[in-house]
Amino acid sequence: MLQTRLCSLPSGSALRRYKPSVPNSSCYTRHYARFNSTQADIQASRVQVELSQTRKPRPDPATLSFGKVFTDHMLTIPWKASSGWGAPQIHPYRPFTLDPSVGVFHYAQCLFEGLKAYRDETGKVTLFRPDMNMKRMNTSAQRIALPAFNADEVIELMKQLIRLDKDWIPNVPGYSLYIRPTMIGCQPAIGISPPGEALLFVICSPVGPYYPDGFKPVALYGTTEYSRAAPGGIGAYKLGANYAPGLVAQKEAAKKGYVQNLWLYGPEHYVTEVGTMNAFAVFKQPDGTIEIATPPLDGMILPGVTRDSVLNIARDHVAGKYKVADLPDKLVVSERQMTMREVKEAAQSGNLVEFFGTGTAAVISPVDRIGYLGEDIHIPTGPDGMGPISRPIWQQLVGIQTGTIEHPWSVVVM
Amino acid sequence: MLQTRLCSLPSGSALRRYKPSVPNSSCYTRHYARFNSTQADIQASRVQVELSQTRKPRPDPATLSFGKVFTDHMLTIPWKASSGWGAPQIHPYRPFTLDPSVGVFHYAQCLFEGLKAYRDETGKVTLFRPDMNMKRMNTSAQRIALPAFNADEVIELMKQLIRLDKDWIPNVPGYSLYIRPTMIGCQPAIGISPPGEALLFVICSPVGPYYPDGFKPVALYGTTEYSRAAPGGIGAYKLGANYAPGLVAQKEAAKKGYVQNLWLYGPEHYVTEVGTMNAFAVFKQPDGTIEIATPPLDGMILPGVTRDSVLNIARDHVAGKYKVADLPDKLVVSERQMTMREVKEAAQSGNLVEFFGTGTAAVISPVDRIGYLGEDIHIPTGPDGMGPISRPIWQQLVGIQTGTIEHPWSVVVM
Repeated sequence: MLQTRLCSLPSGSALRRYKPSVPNSSCYTRHYARFNSTQADIQASRVQVELSQTRKPRPDPATLSFGKVFTDHMLTIPWKASSGWGAPQIHPYRPFTLDPSVGVFHYAQCLFEGLKAYRDETGKVTLFRPDMNMKRMNTSAQRIALPAFNADEVIELMKQLIRLDKDWIPNVPGYSLYIRPTMIGCQPAIGISPPGEALLFVICSPVGPYYPDGFKPVALYGTTEYSRAAPGGIGAYKLGANYAPGLVAQKEAAKKGYVQNLWLYGPEHYVTEVGTMNAFAVFKQPDGTIEIATPPLDGMILPGVTRDSVLNIARDHVAGKYKVADLPDKLVVSERQMTMREVKEAAQSGNLVEFFGTGTAAVISPVDRIGYLGEDIHIPTGPDGMGPISRPIWQQLVGIQTGTIEHPWSVVVM
Repeated sequence: MLQTRLCSLPSGSALRRYKPSVPNSSCYTRHYARFNSTQADIQASRVQVELSQTRKPRPDPATLSFGKVFTDHMLTIPWKASSGWGAPQIHPYRPFTLDPSVGVFHYAQCLFEGLKAYRDETGKVTLFRPDMNMKRMNTSAQRIALPAFNADEVIELMKQLIRLDKDWIPNVPGYSLYIRPTMIGCQPAIGISPPGEALLFVICSPVGPYYPDGFKPVALYGTTEYSRAAPGGIGAYKLGANYAPGLVAQKEAAKKGYVQNLWLYGPEHYVTEVGTMNAFAVFKQPDGTIEIATPPLDGMILPGVTRDSVLNIARDHVAGKYKVADLPDKLVVSERQMTMREVKEAAQSGNLVEFFGTGTAAVISPVDRIGYLGEDIHIPTGPDGMGPISRPIWQQLVGIQTGTIEHPWSVVVM
């Protein structure tokens, strides 16, 4: 129902379209409404650049841990309801000064995105599908009454920021620069209302490979005590509000010996997501056909960029547009609901080929065990930790991301 | 299920008990776990006071709008996972300086409370049931892996803060000082994990009466497009994450000509909450008995202090402990589920006596109309805007809050 609502918003945005090959997520491909046209939109040409006078020491790639070290510069763009978006500023990384009454401290007026900049051997720097992140950031903003913005202009500004801090991308294979666009409500007033002031900012952090020593399949806890999302809620948006409530569930799963939560929904225990990733299962159908399945974008599922990329790669392969080596020709690609009962029965009958999560951080995260209602469901993985379907898709996807395979998804920064 | 989990936590807290007279919310009356005993708890005796060198001008009560003006001082108490709670500080109201990577900007690591300090004609200043707010703040903190704390010590510190800024309570009947305790996660790292740093802070804002010109019944929009909470979610906790997602629904209700959302749940359209208030309905039963009903604390309902007070006042009246003038003796007090179908049918048959919301801001907010599936359900209100059951309960409650009726719920500040 939420999806319908979004679809009916007036068009006119300068957001890029992306080529849909996912029938029931076509809503997500439409243009999105922007704010009142009398207000200023974001304009990259107005950027004010203040260079850092000092350069921080680069961290040692060998001891890098995720998201603790940030580059020399950051991007901030202020917004006011009265005037719209102000001049973008690229300036030294520094703290914010905020009144204790601002909405982000009280009412979770915050959302974020995550994407990576890659540098190849020739020094070329690329972003992977930044239009998808900016599109989702706009839908997230609208879901909590924060302002929309011109996505292309923010992509241009992110490129400028990355060019400035390009030397922060470790010159080591598998490393990249994690880009974190964020938006917060910052009107100094504790009345509960759409914020009259907001701030879009982008910070960057060098990151290492998710699996430095090869794939490590993870064990999931099929979580029935907590739920991640519900119809009419916010599960389809990358809002801060989806993340704080998951920490306790994650801690409890860890205590039970599992790495992440497998989020289920309803008395039927529909599979929804894996920790902070989208969920995929691969089934062998009675006639031997392989089906790669993920829950549909029904309003409870985050429209993941990696999820969409996996689906597109598989569909393009099936359609013969772009053959992926080692992937079976006869493949069914499904966005459909699946219950834990189906997953369990498939595992027991030997027809569950794989189970994995997808996300920007890990790309593909194979699963070898799901704890469910007191027993463990065991899932096969290959000797390298991956399965026969996810391995070739992962190779294709990482090839595109790192530039060894040419593809329009890879957007050149410099 | 969540309620059960909380109940099973080890006891040992210094939190005050409150006297339960609500059978199925007894879980809420238990002690709550605190953090590791090797860490420091909050100690009011360690407070460091820095007085403001300047006094801000007091706002004109006649033009005061909610939550935009704050008093001269505030309370902050830092926490670190390694050492526990640091020394509390009462200091001039001033902005925070926070790294762009802190959890509250990205993952909604925030929660809050709201209570009021009243000043009577003799100059006596009181708080209304602050133990209830501190107890709930502890349960909210634990729900998102933020630290618990000694509630009595924070009440003592709030009293000190209020004593310092007592002159900010406008000397006009119906006015009070709104106290806003808040907690945020502020570890500078974007990995999604329980925060290693947090800040508890309290700010104060003078407020006027919610209905300066007498009660104005409100129209609600029975919301089927969005949901506020779901089983296994966070509806029972006063987390920021419950508030940002409601703004868009509120805007849409306003566009349709309604003041607030009536939050419903599930295909049965169970009544849950009213905007940011608890929901009450008053029914006339077939034998003429009056039933005052509110949804049970099933994990989706915020355990409101005003909700609990209304239930207690009505139950004490029925039990003969404390008679409320003008309230019928034969009264049934129910915490039970009710569907929109029941509410609608009762309205149509003339058996819906009242419908109202309860909360700290408005105390009781009468409802005269509910838009539901395309038609309006009309609800009777008296000539003063209130109904025959809520009016005497409101008088009793406000009497206790403002000190004209003596009651242990009123806690003396000075």
